[in-house]
Amino acid sequence: MKTVKRINELQTLLGEFRAAGKTIGLVPTMGALHEGHASLVDRSVAENDVTVVSIFLNPTQFNDKSDLERYPRTLEADCALLEKHGTTIAFAPSVEEVYPEPDTRVFSYPPTDSVMEGAMRPGHFNGVCQIVSKLFAYVEPDNAYFGEKDYQQIAVIRRMVDDLGMGVNIVPCPVIREENGLARSSRNTLLTKDEHDIAPNIYRIMKESKELYPAHPVDVVHDYVVEKINAVDGLEVQYFSIVDGDTLADVHSWDEAESVVGCITVYCGATPIRLIDHIRYK
Amino acid sequence: MKTVKRINELQTLLGEFRAAGKTIGLVPTMGALHEGHASLVDRSVAENDVTVVSIFLNPTQFNDKSDLERYPRTLEADCALLEKHGTTIAFAPSVEEVYPEPDTRVFSYPPTDSVMEGAMRPGHFNGVCQIVSKLFAYVEPDNAYFGEKDYQQIAVIRRMVDDLGMGVNIVPCPVIREENGLARSSRNTLLTKDEHDIAPNIYRIMKESKELYPAHPVDVVHDYVVEKINAVDGLEVQYFSIVDGDTLADVHSWDEAESVVGCITVYCGATPIRLIDHIRYK
Repeated sequence: MKTVKRINELQTLLGEFRAAGKTIGLVPTMGALHEGHASLVDRSVAENDVTVVSIFLNPTQFNDKSDLERYPRTLEADCALLEKHGTTIAFAPSVEEVYPEPDTRVFSYPPTDSVMEGAMRPGHFNGVCQIVSKLFAYVEPDNAYFGEKDYQQIAVIRRMVDDLGMGVNIVPCPVIREENGLARSSRNTLLTKDEHDIAPNIYRIMKESKELYPAHPVDVVHDYVVEKINAVDGLEVQYFSIVDGDTLADVHSWDEAESVVGCITVYCGATPIRLIDHIRYK
Repeated sequence: MKTVKRINELQTLLGEFRAAGKTIGLVPTMGALHEGHASLVDRSVAENDVTVVSIFLNPTQFNDKSDLERYPRTLEADCALLEKHGTTIAFAPSVEEVYPEPDTRVFSYPPTDSVMEGAMRPGHFNGVCQIVSKLFAYVEPDNAYFGEKDYQQIAVIRRMVDDLGMGVNIVPCPVIREENGLARSSRNTLLTKDEHDIAPNIYRIMKESKELYPAHPVDVVHDYVVEKINAVDGLEVQYFSIVDGDTLADVHSWDEAESVVGCITVYCGATPIRLIDHIRYK
């Protein structure tokens, strides 16, 4: 595995691979890698000749500076994990390398980027589009791998790729969970032992709510999830939205869309830590 | 030559070429092709395995709707010229194909994009960055060819490519002129016979001004050009700026920059038609 910090060096390496007709997979990450990321790398390694994993804690997608400051940083362990999983190139640029100029680009894909996390974290998806469009420009990948844990992120990136006509295939990969059902997330390391014990209730209750589908209406399922989770000491739902799985527009009946997904964000513990998850009803 | 209207079809074709290790040159145009464009195509054909020429009258770079409306449209003749010059793919998409969503991206590279044409045509270079970044995303070219006639445009595109870390080599190509010295431009077809006769005075007077360099100061050269051109009946200088050839910041002495270029825009005739040109002093 090569570890590269400069865009020029990355492009020289990739140019050689491309001239040899090799396919390129990209796994964009912000570091603090866990089994979820490893599953993306495994998939890319299986499906491409060359796998590039970027490690870049992108400041423009953090609307909350304290969230950025406490985000875990584990570069050495990250590189060891990537090497073990067959990564060809780990790309870990500096902020100055990625943003030589302030990024003034505005991406706007309502309702996909304006609801849920878009509403709670103003500017978040704009920052995501900024960094992902840059990474796609550097790497020009054939395939790019994203975890479905960030369900809305994938939907927004799909809109951007369609809008800009980028020749990259977006590959959504299933959520990786702990045995207790908690979705793997870099932020989980910020949970105390007690918080970590109550967090699995989120997914457990969402799974229970699937038994209400399709017999009960959307609002009953919605209220079931919110009330049950809020009843757990230490958990508080920020939002739970039942939406069209493609556009992320709210649905009010199960027939309204071809796919229907429930997306949730829950405050966990005293700090608190925001945990996100989702479940597919249809 | 293949003529292609859809991005998907373009990318399928290019994917096959790329898998075979072929290099790709791109010549972005707005149609109404003339010898200047032909020289770009010739250069791309000489330097790449595959040449893509885009023909797209990009609405987002026209701040003046009447300018867009009267811009010449000659698709059939354009395709004949491109085929003759060895183009591999002519890409002529619809506005809906390129802008399935309104393009809300803001590109900002002062002073390069804010002076001269940037000041006279608000939003113009933002539209240029929007379309060029999209074309680069569709084609992922190794090399892209632009006429130096639009000197400022190349400087802005270089800034964008550096900023976004795009792996494309920008190739500036010399201005192609008529025998009388008038820079070839699609807008020249809008000139009356009389206007066409007086327009060559622009470049003639700029060339004369080179004889004043470096003995005379910048402001003397500036005033010489403006006064001489304004003295021609039917010509009126909109601006003449003597600038750093890279950043396009104004220079006040010849020593201020490594390269110094004079950029001019002149109103010609009664309609009037805006003609742009430039000259390198240093």
